[in-house]
Amino acid sequence: MEEKLEKVQVEDAFAVKYPSEIVAVSSVDSGGIPNALIVGWSMTVSGRPPMIAVAIGHPNYSCKLIRECGEFVLAYPSTKVVKEVEFCGSNSGRDIEDKLAECGWGSVPAAEVSPPLLAGCLANFECVVKDRIETGDHATFIGEVVAAHRNPRKLDRLYSFADGRLGPVRRK
Amino acid sequence: MEEKLEKVQVEDAFAVKYPSEIVAVSSVDSGGIPNALIVGWSMTVSGRPPMIAVAIGHPNYSCKLIRECGEFVLAYPSTKVVKEVEFCGSNSGRDIEDKLAECGWGSVPAAEVSPPLLAGCLANFECVVKDRIETGDHATFIGEVVAAHRNPRKLDRLYSFADGRLGPVRRK
Repeated sequence: MEEKLEKVQVEDAFAVKYPSEIVAVSSVDSGGIPNALIVGWSMTVSGRPPMIAVAIGHPNYSCKLIRECGEFVLAYPSTKVVKEVEFCGSNSGRDIEDKLAECGWGSVPAAEVSPPLLAGCLANFECVVKDRIETGDHATFIGEVVAAHRNPRKLDRLYSFADGRLGPVRRK
Repeated sequence: MEEKLEKVQVEDAFAVKYPSEIVAVSSVDSGGIPNALIVGWSMTVSGRPPMIAVAIGHPNYSCKLIRECGEFVLAYPSTKVVKEVEFCGSNSGRDIEDKLAECGWGSVPAAEVSPPLLAGCLANFECVVKDRIETGDHATFIGEVVAAHRNPRKLDRLYSFADGRLGPVRRK
């Protein structure tokens, strides 16, 4: 295959990645107040034991909370919680006492960790931080999954699109 | 929102993640022969400097090559290279002298690193390994992006589906 590739700025190459999976990450402060952040940079990093990595920008309040608490819950949000995802993705827990309460995002106590499970998500993974790596302008947390939960309802996962919107996808 | 969540085996919770983004990772052996692996576990981990993480199973030949060479190229494959992706995702470079040649996957020399850019991909990122973390049954390589390339053709990115097939997606 003959191929012409254009050398471009890195951001211009990243811009063709969409649609892209997003996840919600819940954490909790020392007083037990939960917080949720929406991120696009997350992946599984081990099957046995099951482990998940998530990269969180240093300035984010969740970065401080997870560093302090050593636990997080990672969830796959569905179309049922678009408004909650948009709210939590564009407001900081530093400025709002309880983001989940403020936007009405339901939560359920986790089985093994302090941060809560999030409603309206296809799956929730309870994670204990095993490692943290400083990766440029983000901290990458490596969590071992200690419990997992699935939503019995049939839900569509949320993806982010190149225009910044969120929505479901289907096989073309 | 009232919510009932089912506590399940971790693999059963991971099973609801699809459609999921896949990437190709090229590497090169000490004799200059390239190899390509298809993986689902990859993410950006920093904006400035741009950095990408990719988790590769320890038994994979690519894991050995990247550990030795300290460089890799990560690419977003399109529907134009489904057969090449399927071939490279189901055969090991240990058993085949030159996987890319064997399946006819075109490649282009990179600008800054030894592993090649892959044809039929939306974007290629040249990465230099800055860190490696052992994460359970995988090694997670942290690469700094030293050059990026975009395909001027309009291409559809490949995703993996729950049934194991690969294909494009569109906004639902």
